[in-house]
Amino acid sequence: MNNTVPKTMKAAVMHSTREISIETLPVPQIDHNEVLIKVMAVGICGSDLHYYTHGRIGKYVVEKPIILGHECSGEIAAVGSSVNNFKIGDRVAVEPGVTCGHCEACKEGRYNLCPDVEFLATPPVDGAFVQYIKMRQDFVFSIPDNLTYEDAALIEPFSVGIHAAMRTKLQPGSTIAIMGMGPVGLTAVAAAKAFGASKIIVTDLEPLRLEAAKQMGATHVINIREQDPLIEIKNITNGIGVDVAWETAGNPVALQSALASVRRGGKLAIVGLPAQNEIPLNVPLIADNEIDIYGIFRYANTYPKGINFLASGIVDTKHLVTDRYSLADTREAMERALNFKNECLKVIVNPND
Amino acid sequence: MNNTVPKTMKAAVMHSTREISIETLPVPQIDHNEVLIKVMAVGICGSDLHYYTHGRIGKYVVEKPIILGHECSGEIAAVGSSVNNFKIGDRVAVEPGVTCGHCEACKEGRYNLCPDVEFLATPPVDGAFVQYIKMRQDFVFSIPDNLTYEDAALIEPFSVGIHAAMRTKLQPGSTIAIMGMGPVGLTAVAAAKAFGASKIIVTDLEPLRLEAAKQMGATHVINIREQDPLIEIKNITNGIGVDVAWETAGNPVALQSALASVRRGGKLAIVGLPAQNEIPLNVPLIADNEIDIYGIFRYANTYPKGINFLASGIVDTKHLVTDRYSLADTREAMERALNFKNECLKVIVNPND
Amino acid sequence: MNNTVPKTMKAAVMHSTREISIETLPVPQIDHNEVLIKVMAVGICGSDLHYYTHGRIGKYVVEKPIILGHECSGEIAAVGSSVNNFKIGDRVAVEPGVTCGHCEACKEGRYNLCPDVEFLATPPVDGAFVQYIKMRQDFVFSIPDNLTYEDAALIEPFSVGIHAAMRTKLQPGSTIAIMGMGPVGLTAVAAAKAFGASKIIVTDLEPLRLEAAKQMGATHVINIREQDPLIEIKNITNGIGVDVAWETAGNPVALQSALASVRRGGKLAIVGLPAQNEIPLNVPLIADNEIDIYGIFRYANTYPKGINFLASGIVDTKHLVTDRYSLADTREAMERALNFKNECLKVIVNPND
Amino acid sequence: MNNTVPKTMKAAVMHSTREISIETLPVPQIDHNEVLIKVMAVGICGSDLHYYTHGRIGKYVVEKPIILGHECSGEIAAVGSSVNNFKIGDRVAVEPGVTCGHCEACKEGRYNLCPDVEFLATPPVDGAFVQYIKMRQDFVFSIPDNLTYEDAALIEPFSVGIHAAMRTKLQPGSTIAIMGMGPVGLTAVAAAKAFGASKIIVTDLEPLRLEAAKQMGATHVINIREQDPLIEIKNITNGIGVDVAWETAGNPVALQSALASVRRGGKLAIVGLPAQNEIPLNVPLIADNEIDIYGIFRYANTYPKGINFLASGIVDTKHLVTDRYSLADTREAMERALNFKNECLKVIVNPND
Repeated sequence: MNNTVPKTMKAAVMHSTREISIETLPVPQIDHNEVLIKVMAVGICGSDLHYYTHGRIGKYVVEKPIILGHECSGEIAAVGSSVNNFKIGDRVAVEPGVTCGHCEACKEGRYNLCPDVEFLATPPVDGAFVQYIKMRQDFVFSIPDNLTYEDAALIEPFSVGIHAAMRTKLQPGSTIAIMGMGPVGLTAVAAAKAFGASKIIVTDLEPLRLEAAKQMGATHVINIREQDPLIEIKNITNGIGVDVAWETAGNPVALQSALASVRRGGKLAIVGLPAQNEIPLNVPLIADNEIDIYGIFRYANTYPKGINFLASGIVDTKHLVTDRYSLADTREAMERALNFKNECLKVIVNPND
Repeated sequence: MNNTVPKTMKAAVMHSTREISIETLPVPQIDHNEVLIKVMAVGICGSDLHYYTHGRIGKYVVEKPIILGHECSGEIAAVGSSVNNFKIGDRVAVEPGVTCGHCEACKEGRYNLCPDVEFLATPPVDGAFVQYIKMRQDFVFSIPDNLTYEDAALIEPFSVGIHAAMRTKLQPGSTIAIMGMGPVGLTAVAAAKAFGASKIIVTDLEPLRLEAAKQMGATHVINIREQDPLIEIKNITNGIGVDVAWETAGNPVALQSALASVRRGGKLAIVGLPAQNEIPLNVPLIADNEIDIYGIFRYANTYPKGINFLASGIVDTKHLVTDRYSLADTREAMERALNFKNECLKVIVNPND
Repeated sequence: MNNTVPKTMKAAVMHSTREISIETLPVPQIDHNEVLIKVMAVGICGSDLHYYTHGRIGKYVVEKPIILGHECSGEIAAVGSSVNNFKIGDRVAVEPGVTCGHCEACKEGRYNLCPDVEFLATPPVDGAFVQYIKMRQDFVFSIPDNLTYEDAALIEPFSVGIHAAMRTKLQPGSTIAIMGMGPVGLTAVAAAKAFGASKIIVTDLEPLRLEAAKQMGATHVINIREQDPLIEIKNITNGIGVDVAWETAGNPVALQSALASVRRGGKLAIVGLPAQNEIPLNVPLIADNEIDIYGIFRYANTYPKGINFLASGIVDTKHLVTDRYSLADTREAMERALNFKNECLKVIVNPND
Repeated sequence: MNNTVPKTMKAAVMHSTREISIETLPVPQIDHNEVLIKVMAVGICGSDLHYYTHGRIGKYVVEKPIILGHECSGEIAAVGSSVNNFKIGDRVAVEPGVTCGHCEACKEGRYNLCPDVEFLATPPVDGAFVQYIKMRQDFVFSIPDNLTYEDAALIEPFSVGIHAAMRTKLQPGSTIAIMGMGPVGLTAVAAAKAFGASKIIVTDLEPLRLEAAKQMGATHVINIREQDPLIEIKNITNGIGVDVAWETAGNPVALQSALASVRRGGKLAIVGLPAQNEIPLNVPLIADNEIDIYGIFRYANTYPKGINFLASGIVDTKHLVTDRYSLADTREAMERALNFKNECLKVIVNPND
């Protein structure tokens, strides 16, 4: 615990695509209902990599230098005057999107759809590749002693799976197919396990990822380079198909395959964002089989659940983090995550090492 | 009321596509839990026309002579030994699919997905263009005096809209867009009105159908020959989009348009069955806006609701029936429904006139 | 429309039980996200009467002078610097509870359970028996031209019924029994009608109220002085019982009767707050019949629906308002509402008459 | 496996309260859609004991000799002509209530509310303390090799907890209090664990039962002889109360305690059937806190889930069975279960030992 907050800090600033420089910035000033967090772990997400290489994701365009990183955790370094739930030194996970609390989406409990959300590392909002960030207190969550800072940072991608599980009403005993074993897919396996799915069938084409999926809880793995996922899924489910399928890779073929693998009356979640807009889907199948399809955008009300799951030990995250970098090496961390997808799963930056 | 059931009856039998002949058949024998119904009105459905012209719908193939017609009502002519709820002379609506009651789908309350359903006029099961049909008692529903037999026959297409309303959780005050004003679309307008939708926006290209939609309860009509439905729907909804959209025409462009017209967090039902399998859909829009998509296959548990709605007078069905034929003229009725879509809405056959 | 906001205003201040004096107070200063509303109509609610006579409701105790009144509407008199949705002169309904937007209840869409809500006329928060109130913009709703200010004030009690309808999943065609035809019960009848209930059976012991219930949409009225409600409800529902029952009077016998009137698998909402804590309920009946019981506390996300319903004309509110008073006569209005329950339904105060 | 079915069998017949005699009866004849099951394990349930001692439960009265026992499993001994899913020798669990499949409750997926259900050991239907029973094939479920017949018999009481979990929407990470650690309470602990509850707090007054609860998955046990359950539950939940509470003992004080332990916006399931009808409940608390209360009557659609859970090993049932008897000693088994509640948990009869 360190009670002395410095005036300045180091930050990894992206000035243009694939250019990140380490700069000295003032430590943020907090408002009465905010906390200052000494950042201890930040996971690199696919969206970080996308901004890093393309400078935009859809309508979100990087128009001025930006600090990336939004999967983060840390230690409370200062608290605003009206903050009662935290004290200096508390270990916390950070939910990275601050919502307005006043719009129709917020009032209906779907705050992930708030049009005025300020989300870390989504232009023009800066992110967490820095030594200190400030956050409104209601998006900060204490973590128990048995969670590491890396565990706490992983609650962000894990939240996507939890949200998908809640949207698709995944139940104990359900069968599920999860397409794509990138970091979102792998944490989604953990979510499916936490929700009690009895058969968790996963697909990918990298043996490293399929092996990691097994360690996260997958009961059946399908390497789509070698096997036809539909045939395998039908075999595993006695010809019926799965109760639920999630596509996490943004891959059109995987999406079509996910749709085809769902049983009559089953559910499909679209988690991954494909690069192109129009993807041919088997519409008569959707109608005939009364399939429900749910779009998934981030998550809402997942952090307490995520912390509970990880604290309960149902999921062992230690297989997920394969690479660790200091803040000074943020650019190297990004390049590693970008270019060695077959070797690394989750890459973590530790800004205060 | 006629207590004497004849031994034989007339039936309109389709021997090959576009060939229907009137034949004399034995009146069906009923089992202990069945009733015999003197058929008083049968609506012609798009699926009847499809079998009539193509001899098949997807996997359902007409392989031997078949009697079409499944939207029907009539008078109880005889009751099985264990039937307590009906007596001879009762006026009834007929739900045309008899389900097994034992499979997983039936036990979960989704009996429309029962793999063993026997559905009138779906090969190889004969339908209702006959003077008498038998039916298991639990798929027969008494109608009040203020419903005509034609009203009662309309509960079948009306049920599709009720089912779509329940699946998409249509609520009083919701805004809805309904694409396609064929008979299913028109009765879906009535269902949307019965569920309290405050804005019911409909699209079609035939003025006759748009006019009928107004009489069924549409608050805004869009002739897609003249107006861009997306622009109009956005205008009507203050730029937000509708809470719910239903595509009822099986038209790919209408489906894309329905998807695009839904607000963030809204719901889309796929009611119409398109002719081709693969239809390009805007998948990033589904994910970003967390849209729910629901396939619709027939209906379940809708008849009591449908009878209540029609009996309450909230919907006036008299605009829907434009043409009436006797059983002897079933073929003419089919040709009329097939070739004069701009002139006729619902065509009814009265087998006992 | 009046663009000039005065510096001071009249207010009806309760200094002790049954004592209200008219005082001159400063007009409130608004914050950037607030609007100032010239109050045009305020309904008197049972809770106002309770504070007026007892000085407390449960844990809420009047400890200093308070202004009562929370069912209100008015005209926008000034807007804060960040308010874009309203302009001076707009006619609005006011949702009287301002929630924090940050707590777990708010984030889950159940903001009526927010522990930090500031609710008009709930100690220590002042209410609407004044000429001007300020309100955070997201709890203010524009009303269409065909709604009067009195209609707009009625949306508050109407909201309770809408909330009960959503909690008990009232559906078109449902049968419902509503116990107690005070203002909450009467507006609940309107809500049940708006949700499409096919049979709306109501009970009370005052003929005036039963007559008003008919005008609001009740299909069957039971005077419990003359008839046994259980016997009548069973008769009306062919011995089955109602799908849904709401108790709105806070009367133990009415609650027991509501529970007993529900069919197997049906639902009960507890809307009225009884004076005593422990009420004997038939627990084996709840278990055997798998009845769902829902506690109702205020409402959430109801105002847009309420405005839509009233604007659609499905409910005619003109029978509800029986008495009108100026602000100077607020005490008389309260006494009238308190002592002439057999003569008056809703009593309205017009602070700017 | 034994392909030869004898003509007669032994049965434990109750002729009057606390009198059971072993008789020889014909082996049942099966219908085309039924299977004959050689009964291998039957658990004794509280309802069996109630009929054994009182000769009735509520409206169900033993009016002629009856065979008790309904928690059972066995081996397929013969199959009807239309049975395709089973062959002789298959190991199966038996869901003991055969429903009509035709009524409104069945069609809506709530077949546990079917008025025409025939439930083993509910008068006048005979139960499973026999060597062979027949069953309609759709209420028979194959079990995997790693489940014992005793496990399979336990799926019946386990189903009650699964049903309660589904009714109260128990979610991973939820906190739950379960009152009463009889066999239903103990298997309910297992269900809560299978649904991912993070804190499972249980109460009872017998150390043996509390110890068994820990082995089933309880995270906190409260001996109500020594501790105040409300104080303890508030402490364990940081003063908030539990998300969900289930009362399984039919004890009025435990029910009041369960209600008081639920957090604002939480849910209560009434599983246990109290002896008296009217139990005082804190109604203002239900309303103020918007608590949902769900009556629980048996279960529906739980067997596949139950088999999955037990097969997955998440729950170890071996602590539950404390006593085993042969069919000849059924009376002793009943007396043991009745009189030694402090020593035995689940007592099993093995009719074919």
